[in-house]
Amino acid sequence: MTTGSRSSNEYIAQSYGTLASDKPLGPMEIRRRGLRPNDVLIDITHCGICHSDLHTARNDWGRTKYPVVPGHEIVGIVTAIGEDVTSHKLGDRVGVGCMVDSCMHCETCETGFEQYCLEGMVGTYGGKDRVDGSNTLGGYADKIVVRDEFVLRIPDGLDMAAAAPLLCAGITSYSPLKTWKVGRGTKLAVAGLGGLGHMGVKLAVAMGAEVTVLTRSDGKKEDAKRLGAHHVINTTDPEAMKAARNSFDMILDTIPVRHDLMPYLMLMRVNTPLVIVGMIDMMPEIHTGLLLSRKIVTGSGIGGLQETQEMLDFCAAHNVMPDIEKIKMKDVNEAYDRMEQSDVRYRFVIDIAAGI
Amino acid sequence: MTTGSRSSNEYIAQSYGTLASDKPLGPMEIRRRGLRPNDVLIDITHCGICHSDLHTARNDWGRTKYPVVPGHEIVGIVTAIGEDVTSHKLGDRVGVGCMVDSCMHCETCETGFEQYCLEGMVGTYGGKDRVDGSNTLGGYADKIVVRDEFVLRIPDGLDMAAAAPLLCAGITSYSPLKTWKVGRGTKLAVAGLGGLGHMGVKLAVAMGAEVTVLTRSDGKKEDAKRLGAHHVINTTDPEAMKAARNSFDMILDTIPVRHDLMPYLMLMRVNTPLVIVGMIDMMPEIHTGLLLSRKIVTGSGIGGLQETQEMLDFCAAHNVMPDIEKIKMKDVNEAYDRMEQSDVRYRFVIDIAAGI
Repeated sequence: MTTGSRSSNEYIAQSYGTLASDKPLGPMEIRRRGLRPNDVLIDITHCGICHSDLHTARNDWGRTKYPVVPGHEIVGIVTAIGEDVTSHKLGDRVGVGCMVDSCMHCETCETGFEQYCLEGMVGTYGGKDRVDGSNTLGGYADKIVVRDEFVLRIPDGLDMAAAAPLLCAGITSYSPLKTWKVGRGTKLAVAGLGGLGHMGVKLAVAMGAEVTVLTRSDGKKEDAKRLGAHHVINTTDPEAMKAARNSFDMILDTIPVRHDLMPYLMLMRVNTPLVIVGMIDMMPEIHTGLLLSRKIVTGSGIGGLQETQEMLDFCAAHNVMPDIEKIKMKDVNEAYDRMEQSDVRYRFVIDIAAGI
Repeated sequence: MTTGSRSSNEYIAQSYGTLASDKPLGPMEIRRRGLRPNDVLIDITHCGICHSDLHTARNDWGRTKYPVVPGHEIVGIVTAIGEDVTSHKLGDRVGVGCMVDSCMHCETCETGFEQYCLEGMVGTYGGKDRVDGSNTLGGYADKIVVRDEFVLRIPDGLDMAAAAPLLCAGITSYSPLKTWKVGRGTKLAVAGLGGLGHMGVKLAVAMGAEVTVLTRSDGKKEDAKRLGAHHVINTTDPEAMKAARNSFDMILDTIPVRHDLMPYLMLMRVNTPLVIVGMIDMMPEIHTGLLLSRKIVTGSGIGGLQETQEMLDFCAAHNVMPDIEKIKMKDVNEAYDRMEQSDVRYRFVIDIAAGI
């Protein structure tokens, strides 16, 4: 655990990052800002690996600023606090998700949707610091400095490593389930069974829903059942898809690649939503005839601060944990390669406490 | 008023219809079924002209069954009733909209969405009668026989001619405004100012909303204000569109042709819907990034029976009337041509009582 400080109270941190899209991640010494009055210093113990990390490191979306240090599923221990910090104290178990700041006074921030801040939320990595304009660096590092309000409490019951993926994959699945009032008896379909989908299944089951996994692969059938799903439909089976028409109250669509929504819209009851949480792409054309029967197409991105805390508390209370595979920091590039082959069930978590 | 009856108590009706897509509408003698126990015979006084009438007569959607007699904005007087009819009596002022039957026992019918009947609702024209399988013929006629439950009451305060367009254009605008809880203070945008749009403006104003019309044409500005709109934005003005970002609680999209939704989604607040009621086409691609900030895309088609009655009562109570231009039956082909030039403000109504 490095605790060295520099001029103007900056901290030196050991991280894994990259300087270019064609370079693998490697060790990188970075600086964390000295504490502002409302800042918290966190010694990171674990960081989950999200697909966005990989896309950003490799500049798949064409807007990466280098150097990049990925990581926005961060958990750790508070080791210093600024003088105005009120929510956290030394030794607290805490987490940081996809954002580290926002204006906190616009209409969307004030209604608990900091992630949609009208001035733009500040991403945990690749964001622009609202005070000094610097490029933010993420959680593949042994320490990070984050504004008090953007640091969440990790409830006592939660394993630190398993808690990490909740900060992105967890809240991204939880928020739409709450928004659309999933509860006892809701007939929910979860499309796709990856990092987001497997959390969607577990969370919805804990909420009392009757959960069906929609997948193209029979290979995921057993896993879906193990995770708690009540039914599995292979979407390549026309008979099964026909039999399931007009039967769902909601579809949580976690499929991460571009895909046609029309076969899914056919499965939904009147006045029910299909919520996209995985696809970041141009959504293919939809015939409005399907929409005119009041099928709702929408999306959802992570969650606000209060809702993220509520999700962590819910997971602790209901013992909802992601399935994780722990890796060492040095093995991150291999993990990326395996993720590209969908060879992870269901989330890699870097054991940063074990050393960088 | 023809009252002649035939064998098995059929009625002869005078109508305007066509036998082929390339033929204009012309006089046609048709039969209406003898009354079933729960049937109502209506002497039609007026019938509104919907764009669907034109599309169907000309087979624009490729599924017209000929002969076709268009018309699903029907008002008239009850002149006979079957023995089990309970909702209507001789002399009542009544209306019939886009559907004349449904199963009445499926899940969607039972929740008041007969228009989405899982067995398929029976369209007022071009539908298949649930009893004898015959092709239904619409309201460009001097009489029609319709199942009791599908006949609405026209409240005393409503002018018969003006009431006609409420049965399609009215309910199609009213239902989404109610579904999405438009009321006092709602910042509503109405995109497009035609038959549907002008009703959307009037209804939303009566509900207490702050209404903005989005139009490509400065020529509609004065009209929008006259109809009650508080603001008008020309969608081809980039500055005005930029200034309006994140400002609306809902967009009622009445534009009848294929169009890009993305500029409109930019105008909406978080967690608000764009409801398509006009476009029957493939909806162009949308970048899911816009949806991930919880913009909702949905559609809506007419309304259920109870809601349609509620809409008629609302219009009578608030004196909400469409702007109509009355025509004679023989002038219907000319009216179609003018509709294609958007040369109607805002709905043609055929004065059938004046003769066919």
